[in-house]
Amino acid sequence: MDAISRLLKPRSVAVIGASADLNKTAGRPVAYLRKHGFSGAIYPVNPRVESIDGLRCYPDIASLPEVPDVAIVLLGAERAHLAVGELARRGTAAAIVLASGYTETGEEGARRQQQLMEAAGSMRLLGPNTIGLVNLSDNIPLSASGALAMEHFPVGCIGVVSQSGGILGALLSRAAARGIGLSKLISTSNEVDLELADFVDYLADDEATKVIALYVESVRNPDKFRAAALKAARAGKPVVVYKIGRSEAGAQAAVSHTGALAGADRMYDALFKQVGVIRAQNFSDLLDIPAALSTERVLAGKRVAILTSTGGAGTLVSDSLGVSGFETSAPDVVTAARLRALQTGDHAALDRNPIDVTLAGLQPALLRGAIQALLDSPSYDALIIIVGSSSLAMPELMADAIQDCLHTSDKPVLAFVSPHAPDVTALLNQRGVPAFTAPESCTVALDGMLQVARWKAPVATGVAPVQVSIDDLPAGSLDEAQAKALFARFGVPGVRETAVSTPEEAEHAASALGTRVVLKILSAEITHKSDIGGVAVNISPDQVGARLMAMATEVEVRAGVTPKRFLVQEMALGGTELILGLHRDPLGTAILLGMGGITAELFKDTAMRLLPAQGGLSRDEALALAQELKTWPLLDGFRGRPKADVEALVSAIVAFSQMAAQMGGRLIEAEINPLFVFPQGQGVQAADGVVVLGA
Amino acid sequence: MDAISRLLKPRSVAVIGASADLNKTAGRPVAYLRKHGFSGAIYPVNPRVESIDGLRCYPDIASLPEVPDVAIVLLGAERAHLAVGELARRGTAAAIVLASGYTETGEEGARRQQQLMEAAGSMRLLGPNTIGLVNLSDNIPLSASGALAMEHFPVGCIGVVSQSGGILGALLSRAAARGIGLSKLISTSNEVDLELADFVDYLADDEATKVIALYVESVRNPDKFRAAALKAARAGKPVVVYKIGRSEAGAQAAVSHTGALAGADRMYDALFKQVGVIRAQNFSDLLDIPAALSTERVLAGKRVAILTSTGGAGTLVSDSLGVSGFETSAPDVVTAARLRALQTGDHAALDRNPIDVTLAGLQPALLRGAIQALLDSPSYDALIIIVGSSSLAMPELMADAIQDCLHTSDKPVLAFVSPHAPDVTALLNQRGVPAFTAPESCTVALDGMLQVARWKAPVATGVAPVQVSIDDLPAGSLDEAQAKALFARFGVPGVRETAVSTPEEAEHAASALGTRVVLKILSAEITHKSDIGGVAVNISPDQVGARLMAMATEVEVRAGVTPKRFLVQEMALGGTELILGLHRDPLGTAILLGMGGITAELFKDTAMRLLPAQGGLSRDEALALAQELKTWPLLDGFRGRPKADVEALVSAIVAFSQMAAQMGGRLIEAEINPLFVFPQGQGVQAADGVVVLGA
Repeated sequence: MDAISRLLKPRSVAVIGASADLNKTAGRPVAYLRKHGFSGAIYPVNPRVESIDGLRCYPDIASLPEVPDVAIVLLGAERAHLAVGELARRGTAAAIVLASGYTETGEEGARRQQQLMEAAGSMRLLGPNTIGLVNLSDNIPLSASGALAMEHFPVGCIGVVSQSGGILGALLSRAAARGIGLSKLISTSNEVDLELADFVDYLADDEATKVIALYVESVRNPDKFRAAALKAARAGKPVVVYKIGRSEAGAQAAVSHTGALAGADRMYDALFKQVGVIRAQNFSDLLDIPAALSTERVLAGKRVAILTSTGGAGTLVSDSLGVSGFETSAPDVVTAARLRALQTGDHAALDRNPIDVTLAGLQPALLRGAIQALLDSPSYDALIIIVGSSSLAMPELMADAIQDCLHTSDKPVLAFVSPHAPDVTALLNQRGVPAFTAPESCTVALDGMLQVARWKAPVATGVAPVQVSIDDLPAGSLDEAQAKALFARFGVPGVRETAVSTPEEAEHAASALGTRVVLKILSAEITHKSDIGGVAVNISPDQVGARLMAMATEVEVRAGVTPKRFLVQEMALGGTELILGLHRDPLGTAILLGMGGITAELFKDTAMRLLPAQGGLSRDEALALAQELKTWPLLDGFRGRPKADVEALVSAIVAFSQMAAQMGGRLIEAEINPLFVFPQGQGVQAADGVVVLGA
Repeated sequence: MDAISRLLKPRSVAVIGASADLNKTAGRPVAYLRKHGFSGAIYPVNPRVESIDGLRCYPDIASLPEVPDVAIVLLGAERAHLAVGELARRGTAAAIVLASGYTETGEEGARRQQQLMEAAGSMRLLGPNTIGLVNLSDNIPLSASGALAMEHFPVGCIGVVSQSGGILGALLSRAAARGIGLSKLISTSNEVDLELADFVDYLADDEATKVIALYVESVRNPDKFRAAALKAARAGKPVVVYKIGRSEAGAQAAVSHTGALAGADRMYDALFKQVGVIRAQNFSDLLDIPAALSTERVLAGKRVAILTSTGGAGTLVSDSLGVSGFETSAPDVVTAARLRALQTGDHAALDRNPIDVTLAGLQPALLRGAIQALLDSPSYDALIIIVGSSSLAMPELMADAIQDCLHTSDKPVLAFVSPHAPDVTALLNQRGVPAFTAPESCTVALDGMLQVARWKAPVATGVAPVQVSIDDLPAGSLDEAQAKALFARFGVPGVRETAVSTPEEAEHAASALGTRVVLKILSAEITHKSDIGGVAVNISPDQVGARLMAMATEVEVRAGVTPKRFLVQEMALGGTELILGLHRDPLGTAILLGMGGITAELFKDTAMRLLPAQGGLSRDEALALAQELKTWPLLDGFRGRPKADVEALVSAIVAFSQMAAQMGGRLIEAEINPLFVFPQGQGVQAADGVVVLGA
């Protein structure tokens, strides 16, 4: 067994600094181990106590009768590293350090954390500042969380890893109250050694775990996380993440716009999406979505039947589903006939959806018949059953009826419990029917199931890597012409243009470029040219000389520098303006595509993909990126517009991403803005660009 | 006392069709009246029973010893109208009809409902298909909802009206479990007589009610609702609505785009916003927001302090607040010093927000001191206190500390309960501290408080009504020139243009209109001109004749009609394209303003205002309408663009709204698309328009 497996399933546990006082945090771990029936050896260590609850207490680590698999270190930050060092020397597999007072408190704490890490050496360390972990599958609590005082763990197949200790207790107590079963609960906190990705990797192999739920503050090691998430996906175990830090300001000072448009939290969105991780939007979703996924039932589409005995609650659920694009259409003819055959008279509404059997329908045979008819119906992909106040007096009625039918179908069956009825909710969850108390949770759960059903693992790019020589490029900002020349080397064509210095050269160049041209100053130093009067569009060739003189004067006045060189460009007409950029962030390198122009800037219509570990984006990924834009219809023939040259756009995105991949860290910033996409067959053109190179 | 007051607070209640069997729905009302100690007379009516629970049972309505204030009619739909007729004849103030089988079941039911209404005459009727009502303030249950089996009502100051009976039980049981107190609970359902607005009006006067919560399926009488909501606002009683029907397809077949852009649910948004009603987005918000508002504390801004003893949960709340634009900045210097003086050592984080006193801070004096310091701080507008797992063992600790400080400040103080701890949540709510179990609920509650604090009742328009003669206008669709002439009569200027029939006339007209013109076919029948080649832009005057001939041919081929007349227009340059339209709906008449052009259409960037009962919009309302657009910055000098002529735009909106007000139902459709808004001082111009007139 490797150290992580021994940490999760130790045969022996030492508790360093254990207290005999149950009212103290340090009294809890031993008490919990005994309360929940840990079958291995427990070694409390405390020089001031003889025994704890009948267990022999050891004065120090040296006197322990064997090397423990795991040690829970309850000492404060000023002494924890001493114990950790001793444990490591004895060969302990892993230690859990609960003390706070490390990096989270500032410099002095960071120094202590470094000391702790050094003391641990090759021994694995969970924490510090963690509340520990709980292996519910095997009844092994290695934690001081007050939430463990509960009599019985809610055992199930959801493995939870939290970067916050406090959240662990909240999730455990909430899951227990709801009847939602967990397999493992791990709080990683400061992650001096063992981190989120280690446990995702572990849970992907863990037989007791079918779904993984993560509370994330920040992913320290994106490559490791990505590998672990993909491993979980291959093992058929969905990963659901609640990630905080959403409101952090994403903008940063940069030459290009891409940084401001990207934002740290959107990078996480891209990362999660690319490895098939479902992002929970509300905290409660972090249990609700896994509860639905843990049934391993498959949602094939968006058509949902709602079975109710009370009008209002059914409508609540159908309204919430409708807002999220699910369909709740009336039963097909055959199903409606089956339903009618079950129930006559009264005022049951069996030809609509919600299908309302009314109070009269609360009979076992009738309920079973209705559930079976809806599960059999080829018109529905899922069934939601409403539990109203009238079912409260007979909680088993619903649960039994559903259970009798569950095995006949693998369609998802969820329940919405309308009144406050925690017992019914827990009973249903325990019987394998995810039961929710918010109509929106039903929608979110189905949406999560749909994401799992539709996600496809990324495949190898299939685009041959390019080898372009870039040895000749200088460090620093390139000027516009150099930037576009670089893009062109990798396969992104630019507008036709000529660099000039004099009015005469400008007029000569313009005459070869068409009836209207663009004139710009050319400078590696000035990147926001239009802000200082350094861009003029729609000029006729015979006026370009005069315009150049005027521009030189204006730029001199406004920016205090005399422009020496200018670009005369053909004027791109009839294309759609996009922005294509690169964004680097601790999470990785992203390619960002956005609609250009100022209106689009107000709507921030952008999409992102992180580059894989090797190479650029595939053509499929590049196309998906473009299709993610809200303004995609503008490229796709919206309202009679000509279809854009999407093939050429895809090629440009792939080329740009390959440039980013090949140049790696040397390419500090890169952005094409605007990238014109012309009608089908007419290609794309980079009309302006920014590149900043490292040494 | 009027009939509604007698309905809510009767001295005597007859229960028609009462059963002695408590297991039957018909057995419940009498049982509940007795259980909850109704002090008035109870008259069960049932010819087959002598007495119910010791109460004399009457064989029929005629033999009742007095005219009851209220009757609960438990008979089925086939007989209910007979009882209702008898009750009305005896002079009963109001009857509550529970039977279903009316309009909700189809034609036959609608006929029965008509019969019921006629039987009631001038007696007030609640229902049918209702579960009744509960006056919690006075312990009077007039309902058969199973939720009333609870021992004690959660009495408080939130008055609830629901258009669904089932929801009533759900809200009552959820409120009771949370310790949220209600004053009245009324289910209106089919609303054959008494409706939502009647009870909003009643609750606005009800002394026991401070906040009104509504579950709405559809507002039957918008004027009455508007008046009742404004009355509640004047009485200082916020109204919170959860409205279903959000997913219903809003698009409808219409000549103009406005209908599709408006949508039925957005009309409700406009209505609610204009009368200061807060719209709850999630079902749970319907209790959460009123719970916060019922404290009557005032939120003056967006700066929130979070006090916690556990890291993760505080971060959860601060992240949710941040997403919604609330600020959680660190304590100011003075406050930080006060906090530090309370607590030394350990690893408390007192100079950040969340302010973390850690577990060591869970002492009464320290908590009180911290709460007081934060309430006193001029840097914060509200305080959220986190209840972690460690507080569970001492639930009173938090509650007492908060309560000791509450009276010193009128800032909102909320609590977030992180673990599953229903008792703590209920205790806090009962002590006047709104306590939530979802971090998002804290945000939603504060947002609701902010809406209440910032809402200002609409004032009289201050714009003199216009009197424009429209007697000369024909019924049906106007052509473009006529439509714009109508807009101009009310004060919205159009582009300069001339109607022509021949190439020669076109060239002559064009030469007077500038160097580039627009040519369009002119026809009252064809409204989507550009779809059939009937629009050409940017034509030089000398080519307009030839273009006219070509257009005539193309339109003939594509539409099968030979255009006889054309419009030659000046070409509007340098303006921003908007759309200004009118939308009629059962809720009222709305003025819709949107960004024009195809990009904007993809983003559906529109804003709406319902017209008041009399006259058009005020200049303030028109300006607010424009400022609501996401693309408002484009009119306001975004990125160095010239500021648009907002004064002229406001005048155009006011003029358009006055046209809508004066013409009333005669104006079936009206839309200016595009309306060009030019730079400051250069005005606006209607460049195209649609008008459909009734007879």
